[in-house]
Amino acid sequence: MRKAVVLLSGGLDSAVAAYLAKQDVGKRGELYALSINYGQRHERELECAKAIGKQLGVTDHVFGITSLNWLTNSSLIAGSPQEVCPSIPDEGIPLTWVPQRNSILLALAFAFAETVDADWIYTGFNIRDYSGYPDCRPEFVEAMGKALNLASKRFHETGRGFGIVSHLMYLRKSEIVKMGIERKVPFELTTSCYQGEEKACGVCDSCLHRLEAFRENGMMDPIEYEI
Amino acid sequence: MRKAVVLLSGGLDSAVAAYLAKQDVGKRGELYALSINYGQRHERELECAKAIGKQLGVTDHVFGITSLNWLTNSSLIAGSPQEVCPSIPDEGIPLTWVPQRNSILLALAFAFAETVDADWIYTGFNIRDYSGYPDCRPEFVEAMGKALNLASKRFHETGRGFGIVSHLMYLRKSEIVKMGIERKVPFELTTSCYQGEEKACGVCDSCLHRLEAFRENGMMDPIEYEI
Repeated sequence: MRKAVVLLSGGLDSAVAAYLAKQDVGKRGELYALSINYGQRHERELECAKAIGKQLGVTDHVFGITSLNWLTNSSLIAGSPQEVCPSIPDEGIPLTWVPQRNSILLALAFAFAETVDADWIYTGFNIRDYSGYPDCRPEFVEAMGKALNLASKRFHETGRGFGIVSHLMYLRKSEIVKMGIERKVPFELTTSCYQGEEKACGVCDSCLHRLEAFRENGMMDPIEYEI
Repeated sequence: MRKAVVLLSGGLDSAVAAYLAKQDVGKRGELYALSINYGQRHERELECAKAIGKQLGVTDHVFGITSLNWLTNSSLIAGSPQEVCPSIPDEGIPLTWVPQRNSILLALAFAFAETVDADWIYTGFNIRDYSGYPDCRPEFVEAMGKALNLASKRFHETGRGFGIVSHLMYLRKSEIVKMGIERKVPFELTTSCYQGEEKACGVCDSCLHRLEAFRENGMMDPIEYEI
């Protein structure tokens, strides 16, 4: 029986990753979802993650808490003095960067996988649209997978390790949306806006990417926008 | 100016590591302490960590929370159905194993270091006394350091990375105690017992190692024991 853990943020990419994971484990397999509250400005994501996990029918959905409020340099953390930058800066890494977020998420996912004896960790990591984030790159994911396997009791004792699956890594956003449409991902339950309000702002970097991706697929995005 | 972050658990090893870090950064340098509440059975550790940080005079001491209560397979997590094993099992990894604990701690420490622009992360990792834990091994620490640097914005943009310093890695417990004695580490503020009561049990694996280490140095351990 194939068992997997998916890192489910409530965003579009991780929702598609979750549906791909479900397909991979098959009807007899087990899919576990992990969602982490790290004090993100858009805590709404977690409600979305919950709804997506329910719709998908995961075996278990765990909600963890990791306080990162002390990392005040990031504008994505609620309570940060910096405002969310509405669009990507001309150069460099966006202000929405949270240091080591994906490292922390992967470490927690490996811990969860070891606990439920799963072999695969599915992520929605993607290098294209967020190319400024170094912890979305395949070099990082590979190095982190190696390190986390070295820390694993199961791998240490039995040689049976854990694999990170990032089906979306090299895809454009429109291709991700296409894969989601084909698998009937409930996009209306996902959220992408950096502002995290009930209606998406439609002007932040994340909204712009999303809107364009649906447009390229000749579809309306089913979520509500302010504009 | 040399800046460092130390992972301070409140245990004996990390207290010595903190004093070594303070010595390394010097009087003009800055030392930041990071202590993580991960729902450990011995939450007392955090009070000890606080007292040690205060005594040492750290620039800032951050207390983070990472809930790991859902990793119910570990007996070190409070509320776990498993009891703490009073001594090391004959073979294999002790029941007190928390999956990926050091991975999570290192990822958080790197995030903190990036935030305060420190270059070094000090740990009390040691392979000798706890040889059953794969995430105390130098192979793991090296691989994790590489992965976390790959995820770092600062390293990505400037090439200035972060180094993990584990002075105690190959030392015997008695050598660690000796280094602490020489640097006037307030051992009376540290805790090691797996039971986490006010008085140390004196019979768990951790207590036995500690008692023996002080004995080898011809000193009484200043903390109180039940027996």
